[in-house]
Amino acid sequence: MLRSFWSNVTAGIAVLVGIAGLSYVLAGAAQPPGGPAAVVEFTADGKLKQPIGYREWVYIGEVVTPNELNGGEATFPEFHAVYMDPESFAHFKMTGKFRDGTVVMKELSSVGSKEAPSGNGYFQGELTGLEASIKDSKRFKDEPGNWAYFSFGHKYPLKAEVSKNAAAACNQCHQDNAKMDWVFSQYYPVLSAAAPRSK
Amino acid sequence: MLRSFWSNVTAGIAVLVGIAGLSYVLAGAAQPPGGPAAVVEFTADGKLKQPIGYREWVYIGEVVTPNELNGGEATFPEFHAVYMDPESFAHFKMTGKFRDGTVVMKELSSVGSKEAPSGNGYFQGELTGLEASIKDSKRFKDEPGNWAYFSFGHKYPLKAEVSKNAAAACNQCHQDNAKMDWVFSQYYPVLSAAAPRSK
Repeated sequence: MLRSFWSNVTAGIAVLVGIAGLSYVLAGAAQPPGGPAAVVEFTADGKLKQPIGYREWVYIGEVVTPNELNGGEATFPEFHAVYMDPESFAHFKMTGKFRDGTVVMKELSSVGSKEAPSGNGYFQGELTGLEASIKDSKRFKDEPGNWAYFSFGHKYPLKAEVSKNAAAACNQCHQDNAKMDWVFSQYYPVLSAAAPRSK
Repeated sequence: MLRSFWSNVTAGIAVLVGIAGLSYVLAGAAQPPGGPAAVVEFTADGKLKQPIGYREWVYIGEVVTPNELNGGEATFPEFHAVYMDPESFAHFKMTGKFRDGTVVMKELSSVGSKEAPSGNGYFQGELTGLEASIKDSKRFKDEPGNWAYFSFGHKYPLKAEVSKNAAAACNQCHQDNAKMDWVFSQYYPVLSAAAPRSK
């Protein structure tokens, strides 16, 4: 009986370990742990490492500022695809607010063509640039609104890690012109559809 | 010993059931079961119900065909945001192919403004329309490439359920002009970045 007791204990531990492991993976799949640390990484000296996986985050809007309409080179050339990390988007849907820890990525791509079977307009060419904005009341406690802005460049190869931009370079324009909490939500109908109270 | 044997068997069964249950939930969270039935629904007479949740699928590309550049009304007015269901995107990343069961949604939105702090261009206004294309070798075995096309309308309120369009209305243009398997992948650099072999 002693042997079977230990056999049961061993089996029991194996079950608990197995369930804990599965639960951890399950929790990871359904809802990653909070904060930007969950989706982005910083170097010891505070540089943001180029995030991965953001193309599978939640897409919140699209803009095109063609170079040809902006004196040959737009400030952000040319298509902008904007993504938000999934957990922050889930929080936004519930509350209409950008939670502490929100990460927004802006991926730039060129205009590839202006005519296609669907008509005249602007059609994407190549991926060209990547930028990020992160709201973090601890790490960016001195930035207005606690938002910091990063650019990995507008041409490939992109930088692997970058320091935040000076507040005057990005934050000021967002503070002055963005509709909601430093985010240009006025151009992202997906956001207002997700959280009608945020309108 | 007999009692402890049955105790072990019972414990073993409990473990297996538990793990199977967790694995099912886990599989559900990480990778829903295959086929369009997992992400879209049809009525008994074959109409596609308006999908839900597609704004949290994987965004694959953006296009803008402004009305003003298309004689007052574009064929698909005006912004097109294109999404693919996550499991089919995961398959595409692995293989460079659109699996049987791929669902692609195209959400339309209006041009809201043409000038913003980031420059001149086209900025989204309101969500206006929704379309879908689905590759299904069983349900659409008679459609070229097994792709069928659906439109929920270009103006709100959208239709709740719709029959597939005639092949001549959509499929023919995709067959003639789309780069890869009836999908206009030439305008979606996210796709070629996801599966470089598909280029």
